[in-house]
Amino acid sequence: MMKFHKAKLPTIRIPNRLRKTGMPPGTLIFTGRKKVEETHVTLVQFNAEGLIFEQHLKEKLPIAEPGVLVSWYDIRGLHNVELIQAIGDRFNIHPLVLEDVLDTQQRPKFEEHEEGIFLTIQALSFDKENLEIKMEQVAIYAGKGFVISFQEDEDDLFPAIRERIHSGRGKIKKRGADYMAYALADNLVDHYYLLLDQIENVLDELEEEVLSQPGRASKEKIHNLKIQSIMLRKMVSPLREAIGRFSKSENHIIEESTRIFLRDLYDHTIQVMDTIDTYRDVMSGLYDLYLSEISFKMNNIMRLLTIISTIFIPLTFLAGIYGMNFDHMPELHWKYGYFVLWGVMILITAALVYLFRRKNWL
Amino acid sequence: MMKFHKAKLPTIRIPNRLRKTGMPPGTLIFTGRKKVEETHVTLVQFNAEGLIFEQHLKEKLPIAEPGVLVSWYDIRGLHNVELIQAIGDRFNIHPLVLEDVLDTQQRPKFEEHEEGIFLTIQALSFDKENLEIKMEQVAIYAGKGFVISFQEDEDDLFPAIRERIHSGRGKIKKRGADYMAYALADNLVDHYYLLLDQIENVLDELEEEVLSQPGRASKEKIHNLKIQSIMLRKMVSPLREAIGRFSKSENHIIEESTRIFLRDLYDHTIQVMDTIDTYRDVMSGLYDLYLSEISFKMNNIMRLLTIISTIFIPLTFLAGIYGMNFDHMPELHWKYGYFVLWGVMILITAALVYLFRRKNWL
Amino acid sequence: MMKFHKAKLPTIRIPNRLRKTGMPPGTLIFTGRKKVEETHVTLVQFNAEGLIFEQHLKEKLPIAEPGVLVSWYDIRGLHNVELIQAIGDRFNIHPLVLEDVLDTQQRPKFEEHEEGIFLTIQALSFDKENLEIKMEQVAIYAGKGFVISFQEDEDDLFPAIRERIHSGRGKIKKRGADYMAYALADNLVDHYYLLLDQIENVLDELEEEVLSQPGRASKEKIHNLKIQSIMLRKMVSPLREAIGRFSKSENHIIEESTRIFLRDLYDHTIQVMDTIDTYRDVMSGLYDLYLSEISFKMNNIMRLLTIISTIFIPLTFLAGIYGMNFDHMPELHWKYGYFVLWGVMILITAALVYLFRRKNWL
Amino acid sequence: MMKFHKAKLPTIRIPNRLRKTGMPPGTLIFTGRKKVEETHVTLVQFNAEGLIFEQHLKEKLPIAEPGVLVSWYDIRGLHNVELIQAIGDRFNIHPLVLEDVLDTQQRPKFEEHEEGIFLTIQALSFDKENLEIKMEQVAIYAGKGFVISFQEDEDDLFPAIRERIHSGRGKIKKRGADYMAYALADNLVDHYYLLLDQIENVLDELEEEVLSQPGRASKEKIHNLKIQSIMLRKMVSPLREAIGRFSKSENHIIEESTRIFLRDLYDHTIQVMDTIDTYRDVMSGLYDLYLSEISFKMNNIMRLLTIISTIFIPLTFLAGIYGMNFDHMPELHWKYGYFVLWGVMILITAALVYLFRRKNWL
Amino acid sequence: MMKFHKAKLPTIRIPNRLRKTGMPPGTLIFTGRKKVEETHVTLVQFNAEGLIFEQHLKEKLPIAEPGVLVSWYDIRGLHNVELIQAIGDRFNIHPLVLEDVLDTQQRPKFEEHEEGIFLTIQALSFDKENLEIKMEQVAIYAGKGFVISFQEDEDDLFPAIRERIHSGRGKIKKRGADYMAYALADNLVDHYYLLLDQIENVLDELEEEVLSQPGRASKEKIHNLKIQSIMLRKMVSPLREAIGRFSKSENHIIEESTRIFLRDLYDHTIQVMDTIDTYRDVMSGLYDLYLSEISFKMNNIMRLLTIISTIFIPLTFLAGIYGMNFDHMPELHWKYGYFVLWGVMILITAALVYLFRRKNWL
Repeated sequence: MMKFHKAKLPTIRIPNRLRKTGMPPGTLIFTGRKKVEETHVTLVQFNAEGLIFEQHLKEKLPIAEPGVLVSWYDIRGLHNVELIQAIGDRFNIHPLVLEDVLDTQQRPKFEEHEEGIFLTIQALSFDKENLEIKMEQVAIYAGKGFVISFQEDEDDLFPAIRERIHSGRGKIKKRGADYMAYALADNLVDHYYLLLDQIENVLDELEEEVLSQPGRASKEKIHNLKIQSIMLRKMVSPLREAIGRFSKSENHIIEESTRIFLRDLYDHTIQVMDTIDTYRDVMSGLYDLYLSEISFKMNNIMRLLTIISTIFIPLTFLAGIYGMNFDHMPELHWKYGYFVLWGVMILITAALVYLFRRKNWL
Repeated sequence: MMKFHKAKLPTIRIPNRLRKTGMPPGTLIFTGRKKVEETHVTLVQFNAEGLIFEQHLKEKLPIAEPGVLVSWYDIRGLHNVELIQAIGDRFNIHPLVLEDVLDTQQRPKFEEHEEGIFLTIQALSFDKENLEIKMEQVAIYAGKGFVISFQEDEDDLFPAIRERIHSGRGKIKKRGADYMAYALADNLVDHYYLLLDQIENVLDELEEEVLSQPGRASKEKIHNLKIQSIMLRKMVSPLREAIGRFSKSENHIIEESTRIFLRDLYDHTIQVMDTIDTYRDVMSGLYDLYLSEISFKMNNIMRLLTIISTIFIPLTFLAGIYGMNFDHMPELHWKYGYFVLWGVMILITAALVYLFRRKNWL
Repeated sequence: MMKFHKAKLPTIRIPNRLRKTGMPPGTLIFTGRKKVEETHVTLVQFNAEGLIFEQHLKEKLPIAEPGVLVSWYDIRGLHNVELIQAIGDRFNIHPLVLEDVLDTQQRPKFEEHEEGIFLTIQALSFDKENLEIKMEQVAIYAGKGFVISFQEDEDDLFPAIRERIHSGRGKIKKRGADYMAYALADNLVDHYYLLLDQIENVLDELEEEVLSQPGRASKEKIHNLKIQSIMLRKMVSPLREAIGRFSKSENHIIEESTRIFLRDLYDHTIQVMDTIDTYRDVMSGLYDLYLSEISFKMNNIMRLLTIISTIFIPLTFLAGIYGMNFDHMPELHWKYGYFVLWGVMILITAALVYLFRRKNWL
Repeated sequence: MMKFHKAKLPTIRIPNRLRKTGMPPGTLIFTGRKKVEETHVTLVQFNAEGLIFEQHLKEKLPIAEPGVLVSWYDIRGLHNVELIQAIGDRFNIHPLVLEDVLDTQQRPKFEEHEEGIFLTIQALSFDKENLEIKMEQVAIYAGKGFVISFQEDEDDLFPAIRERIHSGRGKIKKRGADYMAYALADNLVDHYYLLLDQIENVLDELEEEVLSQPGRASKEKIHNLKIQSIMLRKMVSPLREAIGRFSKSENHIIEESTRIFLRDLYDHTIQVMDTIDTYRDVMSGLYDLYLSEISFKMNNIMRLLTIISTIFIPLTFLAGIYGMNFDHMPELHWKYGYFVLWGVMILITAALVYLFRRKNWL
Repeated sequence: MMKFHKAKLPTIRIPNRLRKTGMPPGTLIFTGRKKVEETHVTLVQFNAEGLIFEQHLKEKLPIAEPGVLVSWYDIRGLHNVELIQAIGDRFNIHPLVLEDVLDTQQRPKFEEHEEGIFLTIQALSFDKENLEIKMEQVAIYAGKGFVISFQEDEDDLFPAIRERIHSGRGKIKKRGADYMAYALADNLVDHYYLLLDQIENVLDELEEEVLSQPGRASKEKIHNLKIQSIMLRKMVSPLREAIGRFSKSENHIIEESTRIFLRDLYDHTIQVMDTIDTYRDVMSGLYDLYLSEISFKMNNIMRLLTIISTIFIPLTFLAGIYGMNFDHMPELHWKYGYFVLWGVMILITAALVYLFRRKNWL
């Protein structure tokens, strides 16, 4: 039997809050785990003609090159609070936004500020081994001519975007920072589909398993999936809201032509939400199926064993009868008494088996 | 016992998304399975006087004949991406619409564009053998004087429409492209009623089966139906919304006189939705009934068998008593001891049976 | 044990749709069963002074008498499509209304047309024997000075109305066609209360039955009632909506003074809806009660029988011991061995019974 | 074990409707039970200075004394239809209001009429013995300078109000009829808190009972409470709505300064509603607890008994072996065979007990 | 096994209401328990420069010092009704507000009055031993230049606030009374996160316990948590509403710059609400898990024991056969009969064990 780690309830852990209780609002404290040694900042600058600049920054933020359409600062690792503060100062970001960037357990949200828009999304991946959804918060801040993405981990979440900038495919190089922010968000939401697909595969396998050999492992898997989908729903529901506000935002940095793509993205989040709800219904159906399979199997075993007992009980009684020591038991002295009794016992057995079969119990 | 395929969760499979993750939006890629060898395009042109032109097109799209009221391009098979692109160019269809046409796993939706309206609907049919709903996406694009229907498969989904155009019955030949688009959608929704009727028949049979001989097959059938109705609901709920928007659309190509028919169509989708919800309640009632039938049967078996054991247990005990080898057991030496014991045993049995009957246990 | 017919799911059968699939909208086809030999039309004409004219019409519709306030055409039997068409032509009724009149499986609805208002309601009655709700669609069309009621069957659904017209009680003779239409609808909704009362009686009896002798019949009755109440809810929910729209309608044929009665009618439909929901909760509570009663009874039986077995098992073991044939078993040769053993057995039994009683198991 | 009457479903009985089906709306018929011999009318008249007049009226309604601020007619017993009609005529009350006064099974409602406001509330009390909520409808009609309260029974529901008028405490004597109507309604809603408190006590006792000795009585109590809370919810939900409309009413007889009290009353009905919903959740949790307690107990019994059987089964088998009559059974002839067997049996028992204990089954 | 106190349903106890039923609204009566000997009033006065005055007041309220920005009266102990009345008179607080201050079982609410805003919040803490949420109502009244907080108990709920005023960290000293009121509310809501974190820890432990050794204690813990979360939800749902109204309030004492913090606070209450709902889903999943673990374990025991019985039953029957006393039983006289029988018995046992293993029952 496979061993399963128990559901870790991963997203409802809120250690940051604890550490910050009582602090004045706006204090910058990184509340996640330090996942990378050093904070990496990659700057990608391009315009419609092509890529202008791409470099890992070490010390300080460079001055914008002339002719650059969009500068994308891709920041990985958030424990360097000074750097975050410096970026905030440079781009005039509201302190509450920086606080939200560092607080990696936020509900997804969309905010409009005077000089930019701010969006947080959870990047999701699925650990199929433990049936656990892993999430990492990505914060995106976009202003006139620049986009900053913040993430805690050093995984490259946007290779496809990078590739599109390099190859020049799609519209990404011809549009402004608003489209770039959309492209990043769209890329993250695309991964939700991947996740849903993996969950569906697990559901398919689970259904197979429940119908063929339901066991304790099946039950724990269903339980884990249930807990995970509760968490997932809790994450996607505010995301839908956030993307909805993004798509309806009247902010000056969002161009009219980007709006149709935002609506498309919004449609995707609705579809993701619908699918999660559908999966929850499927899971609940699966759990019912599991319960009734288990009970069906158990009933079958108990019924068969009880029937066996029932057949032997009268036989054993008869054997008991002729084991008695009465002085006068005529049957005992008949020559064929013993053999006749065997015949009677076989007859009784046959009659009972016939009866049980006719009643459809065997 | 019948063998059932497990529920296939057919509509939640989203392979296209996977293949397209990271692609720039608007890229035309056919994401379904190639179901036909060659893409067939049938052009039907008519006006109030009658049918003007009906032909399977091979190479290129013909120029509109003079005096044609409506041209209906009926396209089956979507793997020929070039052809779809050509049609899009010819009728000035927005690239995102074409992308939706090729993405055969869309939620039903209605969109208004500058030069036309766009509607996707799932054509449903029911595989009674496997209790599985099969769906095929139909995309309908209607502009001034033309309607294009896209489908993946080569089944003729609209023989009734074709027949009405030929025979001249109804209003179809006197109205414009908006009515033609309505007629196609109405035809598809009419099939939902057929599907619901088939599901109802299955429910009726299942109820019969659950009440007469509930078994594992019944349970799996109910499970399959439940999963299918979850999927169906997921499909019809956005359809209702889409048709609702269609019926309220202020688009210039929709004539005032068509509006009453669209409202009628909207009423139909509401009725379909209501009926699905009703069926889900019925199914859940059926499942409860199944569970209690199974448990009722099992209880009956266990009770009877336990009662039989209970009757024999004291008898066997008595037989054991007189099988003992004590030197001094006066009963053993009575002449009629053995027969008296039989009498006692029969008395005990009769008393117990009487008791159980009075307590209503037998 | 009583025999119950299975729930017939009566209202979700939609044969008409099937027969009409693919037909152009507006085609007049009667889709119900022909329940009467001949279509009866009764014309009742009255004004504030009294009844002017009441007659069963055979051939043609008479011209309105002078001084008539309201003409009520009471039509029973819908298979005579020509007659329906003639009435439609005479009173200038929209073809879609006539189609709805003939389609006897409509959701209740209210529509306003240029020259009249149209309302469909289900007349309900309860077949207590089979726990089945019977319904018959009544369509009411009211214009300036006339009301037409259409029903499929020939039962007189409105004897109370007829009696009020004859006797002159109430306001019915002093008000116009709008009040007459209200009176008919009100009369039908009054029957819903009757139905609810009958269902409540069945619920009361069922509760009694479940608490005294729960059996298979109880379960099937609860199941039937559940299915029926699902259907009932499906019927009343759109009715409430329809009456709501009726009461808020700004149509010119509805006089201001009728409005307060319409609001009263609307209150009644809300109360009916509330009561159905309450009943569904009660039913679900009853089902839980049934399940726990059954399981309680079963547990009691099993517990008692198991306890009996448990008492006899050590006794039988002891009898077995002294039935052994060892050469050296000193107890066997004691003079009072047998009687001492009986004493021991009685002691063991008493001890076990005492123990079980103390543990509250007996 | 206590004996419980079954839940009486008291409020859903609707005999009045039955008696009135088909009657023209506005007919005055008392539909309740005649609970008092004679209809009592008590008139209380006061102004800011103090009580002016308090008397049980016999024959006719007196003319208002000069200087009276509020006249409160407290009417108990509704079978005297003529009196009700006379009061209606005197104060110009709309016939439909009078009809509602006499129809004692109304949903709580608030209506505004030209010359007054009308409110019906159920006065609730709790019969703890039978776990039954008793209700009595109180109808309050308030116009310029007068309030009329109608109740079916002769219990004094408003001793606190009467006492406040006598003692002059509070604002009641300084405010008009609108405040008086509010005070009556507030007094009735205060009793809901009493009722909720009593229900909570029952819930507390039930929880204790379920955890210590769950039995059939517990189940029936929970069932009764469930049914009662379904009824209660059905009653309070429209009350909340009615009080909400009362508090927002723009009617000219409601003074601005009374509004804040009405909002307070509205807050109370919301709190009552919340508490009922909370109780329903608690009840449902209690029922789950009951079920699992029962099943826990049952499992414990069955497990223990099964374990006892399992221990004796191999022992009895061994006894059976040495009760066999084979000619050649060497063990039988060993001198200590019998005692060795006893040793073996004790060993087997010890081993099994040890095993069961280690597996935590005993 | 740990012993648990039963859930106390702590917040639904409403003794105050009982004591006040029938009292005129606005009467000041303290309805809680007297938790402190003497009412403490601490006055803290500060402005942007620093702390001006901090003192426990004994007798009378001091006159405001010149240059004070905010005066915070921190009142603990509510039984001194005269003092509360005096404060009310001094700051011109509406009598209904004072009544709400003394009524310590209020739903959280926000009210705007002419000269101030009024907010009640429950301060929550978690008694992990008894799995019980303890709550204490805090009432906050803020006017121009002053904030009054009322609490029943003498615990210092606001050490963090006090510390911030002393140290001068954050904005608290530069903002007015509105920010101070926000800071107090924010501090209380921060404790909700602590509470949720503690509940989550309990849930984690419970899941571990349910999966390793589910027992009666687990069930009672889950039941207690369920009841507590029902209560918690009942408390937080109106809080969210109250904070929402606070954040949208147009009251003149709330400055524009405070609004962004109020929205942040509102976001926090939404997150708290979401998390509670998530926990309830998790609990319900945990309960299902518990039930199926228990039933799984029970089934395993019963199955094993039944299998043991089933194996011995035919063996005992055989032993019974050869214990019979027939004169002619040839097997008894065979020399190796006894040993052959043992062989047969071992064979039967092996065959049955093999069979059960192959069927996956052992």
